[in-house]
Amino acid sequence: MRIAIDAMGGDFGPRVIVRGCFEALKRDASLSLLLFGSRASLDEAFDALPRAMAPLRERISLRYVERSFSSAELPSHALRGRYLSDHDASSLHASIRAVERGEAMGCVSAGDTGALMAVARHCLGMLEGIVRPAISSAIPTIGERPCYVLDLGANVDCQPRHLLQFARMGAEMVSVVDGIERPRVALLNIGSETRKGSRLVRETDALLRALDAPRFDYQGFVEGDGIYAGSIDVIVCDGFVGNVALKTSEGLAKMLGRKLQVTFEANWRTRLVSFLARPALSRFRREIDPVRYNGASLLGLSATVVKSHGGADALGFSYAISRAVTEVSGRLPARLAEGLAK
Amino acid sequence: MRIAIDAMGGDFGPRVIVRGCFEALKRDASLSLLLFGSRASLDEAFDALPRAMAPLRERISLRYVERSFSSAELPSHALRGRYLSDHDASSLHASIRAVERGEAMGCVSAGDTGALMAVARHCLGMLEGIVRPAISSAIPTIGERPCYVLDLGANVDCQPRHLLQFARMGAEMVSVVDGIERPRVALLNIGSETRKGSRLVRETDALLRALDAPRFDYQGFVEGDGIYAGSIDVIVCDGFVGNVALKTSEGLAKMLGRKLQVTFEANWRTRLVSFLARPALSRFRREIDPVRYNGASLLGLSATVVKSHGGADALGFSYAISRAVTEVSGRLPARLAEGLAK
Repeated sequence: MRIAIDAMGGDFGPRVIVRGCFEALKRDASLSLLLFGSRASLDEAFDALPRAMAPLRERISLRYVERSFSSAELPSHALRGRYLSDHDASSLHASIRAVERGEAMGCVSAGDTGALMAVARHCLGMLEGIVRPAISSAIPTIGERPCYVLDLGANVDCQPRHLLQFARMGAEMVSVVDGIERPRVALLNIGSETRKGSRLVRETDALLRALDAPRFDYQGFVEGDGIYAGSIDVIVCDGFVGNVALKTSEGLAKMLGRKLQVTFEANWRTRLVSFLARPALSRFRREIDPVRYNGASLLGLSATVVKSHGGADALGFSYAISRAVTEVSGRLPARLAEGLAK
Repeated sequence: MRIAIDAMGGDFGPRVIVRGCFEALKRDASLSLLLFGSRASLDEAFDALPRAMAPLRERISLRYVERSFSSAELPSHALRGRYLSDHDASSLHASIRAVERGEAMGCVSAGDTGALMAVARHCLGMLEGIVRPAISSAIPTIGERPCYVLDLGANVDCQPRHLLQFARMGAEMVSVVDGIERPRVALLNIGSETRKGSRLVRETDALLRALDAPRFDYQGFVEGDGIYAGSIDVIVCDGFVGNVALKTSEGLAKMLGRKLQVTFEANWRTRLVSFLARPALSRFRREIDPVRYNGASLLGLSATVVKSHGGADALGFSYAISRAVTEVSGRLPARLAEGLAK
């Protein structure tokens, strides 16, 4: 099992990504990685690693790529290097081409989502019958299982048949990756009654209800709070709405975390309590930490590509690699194609 | 200052609403209220009040209305009573008609948002020049000031000129109600670069940039996390997106609250810590509690109508009444009309 890694993306640079690679290698003895990044920054990142990790080093191959893609560029610019050699392409581009050529079975990048999607579509192509690729990520819920939301930003303006495919792709993914037989699927709306919502969701609702023996359990509409309620496995929406829901959640979680910290730092009494509460609070943080679910799947491509959150730490990046491994082992792209052909 | 109250709306019924009325009367000595509800439930609600509140009773007038509007009905059904006497109309309808006839200066209801908007538009009419009314609510942020988001669900399918008016109405409201001279206004999008997002937001962005000497400071695009960042006073979006952002936040906050509780109830050690942390945690809860900001404004109508959250408790409902008082005292509808005529 070999995964290609774009070592240059993300907010914290190659040091954090390389550290994340070692975390993933530590967890999975059958894994090997192919890293793409500039010689200077990869050398520096490897030098910074603790000695104990040296034995894992032999399962990493390096490819030096001096150009990295900046999110200030247009995603279409990422395609300019398409006829260039790997040496002149960006690390994002080169790591996807490694999948194209069969040197790796999947790819993980923390780079710009738009560029990643554009290059992946161009180099790897779409599965037959899929009109639009979608981005999906698992989100922690009050229940035991996470909720997958798609699309999270690949498709800004959608039509009902696109949302229908997202529902089918999402359900298929949850079946393959999480082993859930008849996933519960719902449409994100601003009310649960049939007459509510935009034309897009009402027309999609009609399409979903008309499906003959779908491989999932369609539950109708849910409102935004349904994402966290733990009663739905896959929630479908257009990429604009999904992205806003995700980013709003990130903003709220950050605000609550900071306010909680300020509360406990108010005086010596609360600081003492905070000290005593530390084990409980860190267990709480671990449980709600979206890092556990880091790694958004680019669904509908002919091969596995996972996007890590730009702000992910090493552990978070390692989970994105594990996500890619799970999808490759489960032959997710092939099974999506089979499932959708039915 | 007299406000009409629909005493029958909301998840917890007239008891909680009547209690909220007394809370508002206690805070504001110049306030009087006109309550609409069924005789039996109002009588029961008044009987349940503590004796200490009896002196406030004289600032409340009652009007018995036996019909209440159920959210299972279509909002358009709410209009059926339009030619009927108050006695046959629903409490929601009757309380808005009190504003229409000048018996009250504004109205508060925790009833169905769609019905409230439909009846209010029909009875009170729109301000001149306003194409679409919008629902706006303040949301707590990491900063000192809240952020107002609009629209939160009145308009599912919007055009750029609608969002432009929402921006102007929101800015005017923040100026009048919160006394902020040049409010910072932004458009909700899925990226901050100009090329990102749907056609709707890109075209609205162009309209906003082309405004001649606007009475606000247009800051361009923000992503969902910008709602909580404390750097924007008014965030504009269509009602579908705004509603999803709001409901998603509610769901996340609820999940985090429950998980925190479970964490602290895990064993005797954490229960002890939880006991010690209680004062700090309740201060934290108070600070982030959206109840402080309960009361969504229906902007663009010729008079003040405030929608209380259905799940608001008595204190929350009292804040919705205070919101209505503030808008009436600030002559918000008139000043919106003046501001938008310029």
